[in-house]
Amino acid sequence: MAMQLPAMSKDELCARLEALKAEYNEFKALGLKLDMSRGKPGADQLELSNELIAPELLGNFKASNGFDVRNYGILDGIPECKELFAQVLDVPADNVIVFGNASLTIMYDYIAQCMMFGSGAEPWSKQEGIKFLCPVPGYDRHFAILEHFGIEMVNVPTDANGPDMDMIDELIKDEKVKGIICVPMYSNPSGITYSDETVRRFASLKPAAKDFRVIWDNAYCVHHVGTPDKLLNIFEACKETGNEDYFIEVTSTSKISFPGAGVAALAASANNIAAIKGRMTVQTIGYDKINQLRHVSFFKDKAGIDAHMLKHAAILKPKFDAVLAAFDKSLAGKGIAEWTVPNGGYFISLDVYAGCAKKTVALCKEAGVTLTGAGATYPYGKDLEDKNIRIAPTFPSRDELCKAVEILCICVEIAAIEKILEN
Amino acid sequence: MAMQLPAMSKDELCARLEALKAEYNEFKALGLKLDMSRGKPGADQLELSNELIAPELLGNFKASNGFDVRNYGILDGIPECKELFAQVLDVPADNVIVFGNASLTIMYDYIAQCMMFGSGAEPWSKQEGIKFLCPVPGYDRHFAILEHFGIEMVNVPTDANGPDMDMIDELIKDEKVKGIICVPMYSNPSGITYSDETVRRFASLKPAAKDFRVIWDNAYCVHHVGTPDKLLNIFEACKETGNEDYFIEVTSTSKISFPGAGVAALAASANNIAAIKGRMTVQTIGYDKINQLRHVSFFKDKAGIDAHMLKHAAILKPKFDAVLAAFDKSLAGKGIAEWTVPNGGYFISLDVYAGCAKKTVALCKEAGVTLTGAGATYPYGKDLEDKNIRIAPTFPSRDELCKAVEILCICVEIAAIEKILEN
Repeated sequence: MAMQLPAMSKDELCARLEALKAEYNEFKALGLKLDMSRGKPGADQLELSNELIAPELLGNFKASNGFDVRNYGILDGIPECKELFAQVLDVPADNVIVFGNASLTIMYDYIAQCMMFGSGAEPWSKQEGIKFLCPVPGYDRHFAILEHFGIEMVNVPTDANGPDMDMIDELIKDEKVKGIICVPMYSNPSGITYSDETVRRFASLKPAAKDFRVIWDNAYCVHHVGTPDKLLNIFEACKETGNEDYFIEVTSTSKISFPGAGVAALAASANNIAAIKGRMTVQTIGYDKINQLRHVSFFKDKAGIDAHMLKHAAILKPKFDAVLAAFDKSLAGKGIAEWTVPNGGYFISLDVYAGCAKKTVALCKEAGVTLTGAGATYPYGKDLEDKNIRIAPTFPSRDELCKAVEILCICVEIAAIEKILEN
Repeated sequence: MAMQLPAMSKDELCARLEALKAEYNEFKALGLKLDMSRGKPGADQLELSNELIAPELLGNFKASNGFDVRNYGILDGIPECKELFAQVLDVPADNVIVFGNASLTIMYDYIAQCMMFGSGAEPWSKQEGIKFLCPVPGYDRHFAILEHFGIEMVNVPTDANGPDMDMIDELIKDEKVKGIICVPMYSNPSGITYSDETVRRFASLKPAAKDFRVIWDNAYCVHHVGTPDKLLNIFEACKETGNEDYFIEVTSTSKISFPGAGVAALAASANNIAAIKGRMTVQTIGYDKINQLRHVSFFKDKAGIDAHMLKHAAILKPKFDAVLAAFDKSLAGKGIAEWTVPNGGYFISLDVYAGCAKKTVALCKEAGVTLTGAGATYPYGKDLEDKNIRIAPTFPSRDELCKAVEILCICVEIAAIEKILEN
């Protein structure tokens, strides 16, 4: 077992540091250019969906209701595409709206609508000092939307079961707290899935704000890498509590088929669906139905998607394993890092020695390894303990990844030793 | 030459009315179901772009800058698609942003941004009583956006040269007037194209509001049916006046390739492009680049689009001609109707006898012919003279169209005679 670095003598640490720096400089001299910064599929994953562009998938361009998908019309998606997402999210097709290519845009737009027109009460923009709860570490693009609209973000810590629900119960007594934004399954970046108990407590929330909304970003609902986690269906859980109007669920095929050329969807209560459709009639005549038909013909149903996701998993599992094996080999037992072991999603969350995340990322950068910026997993980019780093192992090849993680581990240790020596 | 109906005696009118009603009832007995209500391409037009789904168009999925169009990235469109729209709108590619499938959504979103964040001054939503000028008759979906946001609409009459510019010059002295929304070429519904003088006066506007914006909806810029009109380039005209920040131009391939599965774009000044991109980074990672590449590979360049539009024109010209011939035959010289003779676009604007538009549309409906609702071409659906009807000749087959227009002409005359007899 490795020795805990914080327990080492100064001499031991200095000797270790010297050895690490020699290794580091060797890597630096290679002039590498490796990117582990964003949750992008690798080129081999994209190949899995190449048949999506086959013309045969579009037949005579007719949707199941006889509608010509080439022409104008059908606001909320062709019936068979609504049904596909209904299966994926386990909700009735009537509670689904199919949009364009990105769930991010759906979320932005939903919050924009709440700002301009409210969610059953005064427009949020007319209520001073409104807040959202943000389970942390979390997704930087969620935080960017909230910051853009001037919504104050309040951190809620997360553990293996999800966010601290006692804290949330307390915070939502403030009617300025208008909602929560979260990734309940294979969370970005920790990869954890909310426990049944956590989901039930979400379904039982009693917010002071009557115009409260939870953005339930189920981006990774079918993105298993190891033994699949199971997420309790939030709308099922709400059947006992009557809270279904609080929840707006979104997902997309971005990491199932092609990022940027996939199809995104929203699931919500009948009340929310009616409200959203009401303003959609002003926004659009309809989204890309050809791409919707293409996706349904390619995947057919939920079982088809599950089978396809096994192919993604076969590519991703060795990458996740490579990162975790390197962490085990180089960081375990040293008292300077902790990390999650996700069963799915696109990320691993790495906590380095307190006060060392920025330094670690900078050291990596200097050696040609780009990581997600330190702090990005916190609202306003402020990780007060300066320790969380989001690891995105999917985009590089496995060889590049192994090299990148080897360098990362060296940087984690260098930064930690320098911090310990400072103290 | 036909006799002017208003000059006829009561007996003559009654006799004529009886004859018309007999014809009308014969048509009614046929139980027809004809739709001339929306500006949708016909099935034969859709066939023109079927090769757009050919996989060969996507090659190895690489954009001209080497980027894999299947993956995330490229906020403002692949370079070759920006260039294609730059050619279409005759602006530099740097002044173009390529979006998703609909220019309507771009316009909605742009106005939403002005409401929430302003266009260089206070957010529009924080300025009480703001107004937009609406050249009439105009496009119902434009009016719907403005009404949705609670922006007061002020009618500006239009003639063959465009809107009344003297009136606009006067109205924009009110700083509550924040903008104008218009279709400068083959206008919806009149089909007229703004004269060079009109465009130059637009470029020279001196609005009191410093956060003034003109939504220049150039939807039909390449949609010639007869001898092409020519629209002066608004950004060229602004070079002399420095007013380029006032203009947001949009267009799309909706009626070039497939409505709903096309590509839409915006052109604007460097200042506006920078502002729009700034908030786009929060809204999306990028739009559908596969569809962008598909369109560029299919059309290649502006010349390719022009050649393609000739095929559309070959289908549309006989339809426009059929409507105009029927009007000439059945309505000309009777003093009860006037209509435009457009060289392009999707519509013909028909002015019936004052006070008769609603009645005419209702009579048609009863005989199985659906027209755009009377009043739809005016803000709030209020055509105070009750005389304008938008004719959309593209969607029905030519046979159906001839039947529908024959019925329409009978209804126009019945409604007019009944009105004259009332007076």
